Amino acid sequence: MNKYITEMIGTFFLVSGAMLGGAMGASLALMVMIYAGGHVSGAHYNPAVTLSVWMRGKIEMKDAVMYWIFQFVAAVIAALVVMYVFNNEGSGACKEAEGWATKAILAEMLGTFALAYVVLNVATAKATSGNSFYGLAIGGTVLAMATALGGFSGGAFNPAVAIGLGVQKSFCWDHIWVYFVGPLGGGALAAIVFSFINPDDK
Amino acid sequence: MNKYITEMIGTFFLVSGAMLGGAMGASLALMVMIYAGGHVSGAHYNPAVTLSVWMRGKIEMKDAVMYWIFQFVAAVIAALVVMYVFNNEGSGACKEAEGWATKAILAEMLGTFALAYVVLNVATAKATSGNSFYGLAIGGTVLAMATALGGFSGGAFNPAVAIGLGVQKSFCWDHIWVYFVGPLGGGALAAIVFSFINPDDK
Amino acid sequence: MNKYITEMIGTFFLVSGAMLGGAMGASLALMVMIYAGGHVSGAHYNPAVTLSVWMRGKIEMKDAVMYWIFQFVAAVIAALVVMYVFNNEGSGACKEAEGWATKAILAEMLGTFALAYVVLNVATAKATSGNSFYGLAIGGTVLAMATALGGFSGGAFNPAVAIGLGVQKSFCWDHIWVYFVGPLGGGALAAIVFSFINPDDK
Amino acid sequence: MNKYITEMIGTFFLVSGAMLGGAMGASLALMVMIYAGGHVSGAHYNPAVTLSVWMRGKIEMKDAVMYWIFQFVAAVIAALVVMYVFNNEGSGACKEAEGWATKAILAEMLGTFALAYVVLNVATAKATSGNSFYGLAIGGTVLAMATALGGFSGGAFNPAVAIGLGVQKSFCWDHIWVYFVGPLGGGALAAIVFSFINPDDK
Repeated sequence: MNKYITEMIGTFFLVSGAMLGGAMGASLALMVMIYAGGHVSGAHYNPAVTLSVWMRGKIEMKDAVMYWIFQFVAAVIAALVVMYVFNNEGSGACKEAEGWATKAILAEMLGTFALAYVVLNVATAKATSGNSFYGLAIGGTVLAMATALGGFSGGAFNPAVAIGLGVQKSFCWDHIWVYFVGPLGGGALAAIVFSFINPDDK
Repeated sequence: MNKYITEMIGTFFLVSGAMLGGAMGASLALMVMIYAGGHVSGAHYNPAVTLSVWMRGKIEMKDAVMYWIFQFVAAVIAALVVMYVFNNEGSGACKEAEGWATKAILAEMLGTFALAYVVLNVATAKATSGNSFYGLAIGGTVLAMATALGGFSGGAFNPAVAIGLGVQKSFCWDHIWVYFVGPLGGGALAAIVFSFINPDDK
Repeated sequence: MNKYITEMIGTFFLVSGAMLGGAMGASLALMVMIYAGGHVSGAHYNPAVTLSVWMRGKIEMKDAVMYWIFQFVAAVIAALVVMYVFNNEGSGACKEAEGWATKAILAEMLGTFALAYVVLNVATAKATSGNSFYGLAIGGTVLAMATALGGFSGGAFNPAVAIGLGVQKSFCWDHIWVYFVGPLGGGALAAIVFSFINPDDK
Repeated sequence: MNKYITEMIGTFFLVSGAMLGGAMGASLALMVMIYAGGHVSGAHYNPAVTLSVWMRGKIEMKDAVMYWIFQFVAAVIAALVVMYVFNNEGSGACKEAEGWATKAILAEMLGTFALAYVVLNVATAKATSGNSFYGLAIGGTVLAMATALGGFSGGAFNPAVAIGLGVQKSFCWDHIWVYFVGPLGGGALAAIVFSFINPDDK
């Protein structure tokens, strides 16, 4: 249970940081919550990362499912707190242009591939164990990807963040599927690539 | 005594950094003073953090009281230096709108909860001992929380910072109580949550 | 082969980060890809760095040639993805003023000297082995040099980045030679200086 | 000799970074040059830091004098390169208002005190030996102090940087003495305070 609470706290600050502080607020919140919670839960805070770590064989399916549930619940709580305590709410409008979805899916897939590739290498690989840079590297990846790709998709790279932003109406609900297809695809691809370039690290 | 001097120096640069350099100046000053003073005093520089560490059982009450005194004295000295050496003074006006206090207390509580939760996990937990990221994580938390929540409360997350800003007239004195209720509540909550998610780390 | 794939992935994100995210996007992408791939390939992502590491004797010529090939291929792929997926393309115009090339070569040489000097000292020297700062130091060097020298040359410090920007038409093809002469000269100089200041580290 | 060359290279990039990249360029250059050169020379790049480390007993007087010479020479070379290669020159005008010097000396003294206090604690103290954060902490201190205090003095915190900026005419020569009195005073004070709070670390 302590793992699930840790995932919930970290995801709550990541999602509320994204809503109230944009890419910088989200990246910093992610970095610090990874340093705080890594030793308890592994500090995923992201269903796509949990998928990737599960494919890599470093989390059991039962735990992975529970992580997903707690991550989504935390995102919804963050949305409600931001809306009803801090009165910050989007319009919910779906104003993306024709052809937006293709670019957005590829942007989310590329960004989440980078994120999960970094997570697997800095937080689960034998060769980097005991390092002090894992939070900086993972938070830095989200900021790098949001800087480069945020203009195409909003830069969630995380289905839980997307659900939160959907409830809070910064994202349009009709496009939420984009943030499942792209990130889960990117996370899965990262797990495959990781096992290819680290053949001896099971 | 060397611990108390260390708390005083660190808090002085944190508070004067907040006055003269805003959220970035304060966060960077906090990060570097934590790296400089952590090995001497634990580098709290914040009465809410000292409360949280005391509840966690990692500082004795006598020392905690002395830390509080030196932190508040340092904040007042910082305010006087900023006012009378650098001629930087606020208006002292209390212009917050109706309903401000509720949001501000919750913002300060959430932000200080995150801060103390990160401190307890990166600077007092057995599982992370010997790491090189504690200053980055703690300074990064203040910057993350100021980015997301600073608009609601000014983003002190620290009663000593609030006292300093009150003396220097950037904060309105009538609202100083907000910066005791919120941060001390957040710090206390973090200690409770920490002991729940780290049951074997006494 | 896993080393070459790692070089390709890292260089792809570095080059696309430069195109879509500027100096900040490129520096952050470099930092995180170094942390992710350092344990596999050494994380050069830059033909000038590979030259410098080869002169220092820490990579064999056969591998160095393969690194170059994969770095350039990754840069071209990044350019094509940015152009045809994200519709981001430069004008290809050669509008630099008379006398530009001299300053640009010196800027690229100085910046790449600093980059390779930092790489050799933080990622190949015995005295710093096992550190957690190598990605921060190397990514930070690119950001420092782009901040100071980017105005004179565009701030590539990397022939593969230049080829990518040339294909994507942000750089003028007639000036691509500048980004080979400057960076390769700077990288070679760094290898010579390194062996002078670290005489016992072969 | 390898130590002196290291001091010269680091100081060159610090001073040219300050001229061409402002506080961010200087702080980043300092951070990365500390990580690159720390294992060779201790990476002072600053006569006030060298004074402080000498008072702390971690460098011999003969070396300290040589460090000073190479630091000042590097600053002058940086100024000449910036002026004659990159055509970047200040006006040399002395336009500071009445009363400027008192604030500037105190700003330089406070900022350099913080800098030397951080250096002594993170790069020379037994209790922090082997850490990976020394460059981040020291570079971060310069950025923190420049953010808070740069408006009062220009934010050199380093006599060699001041000499470089004087030659390059960004600083007024008549005021160069301010950047010796303030920083050397701050550095000396830091050595005294360090020995007081670390009584067992000789």
